[in-house]
Amino acid sequence: MDAIQDLISDNHCYGCGIENDRGLQIKSVWVDETHTQTTCTYQPLDFHCAGPTHIVNGGVLATVIDCHCVCTAIAKGYLEQGRAVGEGERVWFATGTLNVVYRAPAMLEHPLVLTANIVEVAPKKIVLNCEVVSDGVTVCTADVVAVKVPNAWFEGDS
Amino acid sequence: MDAIQDLISDNHCYGCGIENDRGLQIKSVWVDETHTQTTCTYQPLDFHCAGPTHIVNGGVLATVIDCHCVCTAIAKGYLEQGRAVGEGERVWFATGTLNVVYRAPAMLEHPLVLTANIVEVAPKKIVLNCEVVSDGVTVCTADVVAVKVPNAWFEGDS
Repeated sequence: MDAIQDLISDNHCYGCGIENDRGLQIKSVWVDETHTQTTCTYQPLDFHCAGPTHIVNGGVLATVIDCHCVCTAIAKGYLEQGRAVGEGERVWFATGTLNVVYRAPAMLEHPLVLTANIVEVAPKKIVLNCEVVSDGVTVCTADVVAVKVPNAWFEGDS
Repeated sequence: MDAIQDLISDNHCYGCGIENDRGLQIKSVWVDETHTQTTCTYQPLDFHCAGPTHIVNGGVLATVIDCHCVCTAIAKGYLEQGRAVGEGERVWFATGTLNVVYRAPAMLEHPLVLTANIVEVAPKKIVLNCEVVSDGVTVCTADVVAVKVPNAWFEGDS
């Protein structure tokens, strides 16, 4: 199955854009055909550490959570309009609120495995929750509200 | 006045560590001698963009907020023990919760100006709020709980 990000063109996002060669380039996929849950596996890089070099930085965790959830919302936005992801006029969401609970340190050597669930779909917002597991431990849980933004945000883009 | 981060040794953090040459290396300073408010100015880099190249990625904003608040908590932790920042046994805090409200897009060309306020100090946690202003606009507000962590977290560090 194609990753959601690989279906979205003109995305320069630091966390998820395939056109940002210095970004994280996370990949999110639907878990099944009900299109309510996505997963993402991301291996942090050596410089993504916290104060101690073997623990993942909290901001990197927030970035991966944010982009995984917002990309899930964008994909859902296309499907809600009866279109395949990336087909036709651009559908875009941005983060409205991002609430992260850090439950345990994530070790840098292990991949972060994220699961996002869509809990509410409205015309102008999609609400999700997300869990991050590392080496079998839930390291973060999060709630994200993704808000639909006008395509005018892309005007002035280079 | 020295930045808080310049007084903390052995900090490899992606967001704030002076020993991470691929990190953001943010700098936080106390606003005055009451030690209740800090400020940080950070100029995002060109690849810190969102989908459109002229807007700042939400994860980068979360990272800067997180590290500015946690460094403020670490500094306060030293002062609460009657010590200068970085003096004697290490004092360390990690993010417990990070709640960010994204209020307006931040333009990449402008520096992010953060102000953090300490709102509660307890033996094992420090609660802060934070505002991010870009080009005169409040782009984010946030609440952060920083939790004291044992120095054992640094064991196994390389």
